[in-house]
Amino acid sequence: MDHQNFQTIKVPTALLKSDQARRNINLMADKAAGQNIQFRPHFKTHQSTAIGEWFREVGVRSITVSSVRMAAYFADNGWYDILIAFPVNLRELKEINELAARVQLSLIVESTEVVEQLDRGLSLKVKVWVKVDSGMRRAGIDWNDENGIEKLCKKILSTKNLNLQGLLTHAGQTYHASSPDEIHSLYKESNQRMTDLRESLQHTLGVRLKISVGDTPGCWLSEDLGPVDEIRPGNFLLFDATMMDLGVCRFKDVALVVACPVAAKHKDRNEMVIYGGAIHLSKEFILRDGEPIYGYTAALTGNGWNFLGRDNYLISLSQEHGIVRVKNEVLDQLEIGGLIGIIPVHSCLVVDTLGFLVDLEGRRYETMRPR
Amino acid sequence: MDHQNFQTIKVPTALLKSDQARRNINLMADKAAGQNIQFRPHFKTHQSTAIGEWFREVGVRSITVSSVRMAAYFADNGWYDILIAFPVNLRELKEINELAARVQLSLIVESTEVVEQLDRGLSLKVKVWVKVDSGMRRAGIDWNDENGIEKLCKKILSTKNLNLQGLLTHAGQTYHASSPDEIHSLYKESNQRMTDLRESLQHTLGVRLKISVGDTPGCWLSEDLGPVDEIRPGNFLLFDATMMDLGVCRFKDVALVVACPVAAKHKDRNEMVIYGGAIHLSKEFILRDGEPIYGYTAALTGNGWNFLGRDNYLISLSQEHGIVRVKNEVLDQLEIGGLIGIIPVHSCLVVDTLGFLVDLEGRRYETMRPR
Repeated sequence: MDHQNFQTIKVPTALLKSDQARRNINLMADKAAGQNIQFRPHFKTHQSTAIGEWFREVGVRSITVSSVRMAAYFADNGWYDILIAFPVNLRELKEINELAARVQLSLIVESTEVVEQLDRGLSLKVKVWVKVDSGMRRAGIDWNDENGIEKLCKKILSTKNLNLQGLLTHAGQTYHASSPDEIHSLYKESNQRMTDLRESLQHTLGVRLKISVGDTPGCWLSEDLGPVDEIRPGNFLLFDATMMDLGVCRFKDVALVVACPVAAKHKDRNEMVIYGGAIHLSKEFILRDGEPIYGYTAALTGNGWNFLGRDNYLISLSQEHGIVRVKNEVLDQLEIGGLIGIIPVHSCLVVDTLGFLVDLEGRRYETMRPR
Repeated sequence: MDHQNFQTIKVPTALLKSDQARRNINLMADKAAGQNIQFRPHFKTHQSTAIGEWFREVGVRSITVSSVRMAAYFADNGWYDILIAFPVNLRELKEINELAARVQLSLIVESTEVVEQLDRGLSLKVKVWVKVDSGMRRAGIDWNDENGIEKLCKKILSTKNLNLQGLLTHAGQTYHASSPDEIHSLYKESNQRMTDLRESLQHTLGVRLKISVGDTPGCWLSEDLGPVDEIRPGNFLLFDATMMDLGVCRFKDVALVVACPVAAKHKDRNEMVIYGGAIHLSKEFILRDGEPIYGYTAALTGNGWNFLGRDNYLISLSQEHGIVRVKNEVLDQLEIGGLIGIIPVHSCLVVDTLGFLVDLEGRRYETMRPR
């Protein structure tokens, strides 16, 4: 980005390295293609139709979204095969029916109550996946509860409007791993559980079941994606401080920083006040020695940004203020009214919050959410 | 709210008890008026022109906002006396000049660099306050550094375009108090520091200086607002779980909950998955015994909501999912597809995130941010 582009940045702004983001897409797409696995990227990370086109260019035709509204947004922009990776919200049956009438819709379910109400409420057929909890303990039926899973599959098979696809999981426990090795193990373990379940259920039910898995750490780090049919990572597009600290990506893989104006300097305590708060960066944090870190810092340069190291970081966030703790040399480098780059803890949340991105060539990318 | 109104809620939605919000406004306005103190409420809490009118009805003519954009938003809606309570962002000089041409603008400064650049960049006079750090250690000049504060005041007095108003602080340390008594003490201590500073500086500089203070805990709990000229609380309009836990408000004073659809139930671990995540509720948390709480719960009733007690609460949030841990009786009460109320940890952030509010009579309140 040249200085002219910098000058147009006045408030906290998501800066995108588009070439890096495209490299990240290509790597993941190639890996999936090489193993004949369906790549169904999660579009909640960018929520942008223009960035969606980069995926289309490498052959992606199937996508994952996190809400009915996001499904409708991408449907409006020519996407046809859409999975809503959130347990069906029965309050949106009308919207689900509207969507199902115009796209190939896939939903996820984890209870017989929802399957029954969905079947009654749907006006035409949709695909459904059974959400399995392979260890994350957020949503889904516990993988140990094979009876429960079998019962739900049978229920689905008995419906008129639900077309059973298979078993879906998000092994988000990889986000809490202490090393890349542990991520590998967790990913393999989760896949093993899913495969065992599939084998057993296919035998009992006499139908073919697919497996869909989702986490960026496991999918990015594992050369062998395992015996799965589909992967649904999203965060790898941009990466963030969480992925750096997990050892999933290097700093140079990160494709997003938030440019924030410096509002004040407090040399006595090596702190700066930046214009960039919870409403821009979200309050997602990393714990280091029991203290929260709300983002790392980067120096913006003529053609991108340089990581300032883990010793210069955001120590607190209020609604619009951020407090950055920095070494003397960084404090001296940066002027009040200048910009500092913040590598966010969770890039997906930042994109949702800021509402648009600007790349290093000054192009603006609108996202679903107007701002 | 009758059942018909409930039925229109399909996704996480901010529910407003308008009568309670108005009671909160009246109490704060009356207290300030009774002590002849200027009431300049912070409008970042609601960001709504319609709610702004409730303040106008009780005589409020001066407001506080947290960004240049928010100042412009309220200026467009007939507000004239506007303070931007964030250290001047030099990158928005053009926008500041545009604003200053149409409203009575007040800014806050904490460094001579900014004062110099502001004076050069302004095309007409604005009011400025010196930001003093009375103990919060976020922004402002440390109250102990009287030389620094005096120097900055002198600098302002020497400018052409900056009209020195006085000393402004936000004693946000009250948010970390362990009891209402401690809040009282912190509020009094902060006011004492400000008063001592004022006395000394008025003597040295030979000008009259005002004092502006801001935090909801101190302003709400203190019968005697102290020797200040202006108060700028905001959160008291809605209150939230933070204020409940601090002992600032009771549950019945809370004027906002977020209605969230129940997506799944996990009886084995007394948990529910709700549609309501970080992008709706923000990841602001309260720590209890070292564990984060992302919100308390409430049962929605025909005419509002009932607190479900501190044993039923949000234990985690991802982008769109929330996990609520609840007692058996609550788990049994609530159905998949039903709604649960979440008392957010920080109501201001929720309003910013959700973009609109709906009151118990079904009226919709738009906020600055379209969604």
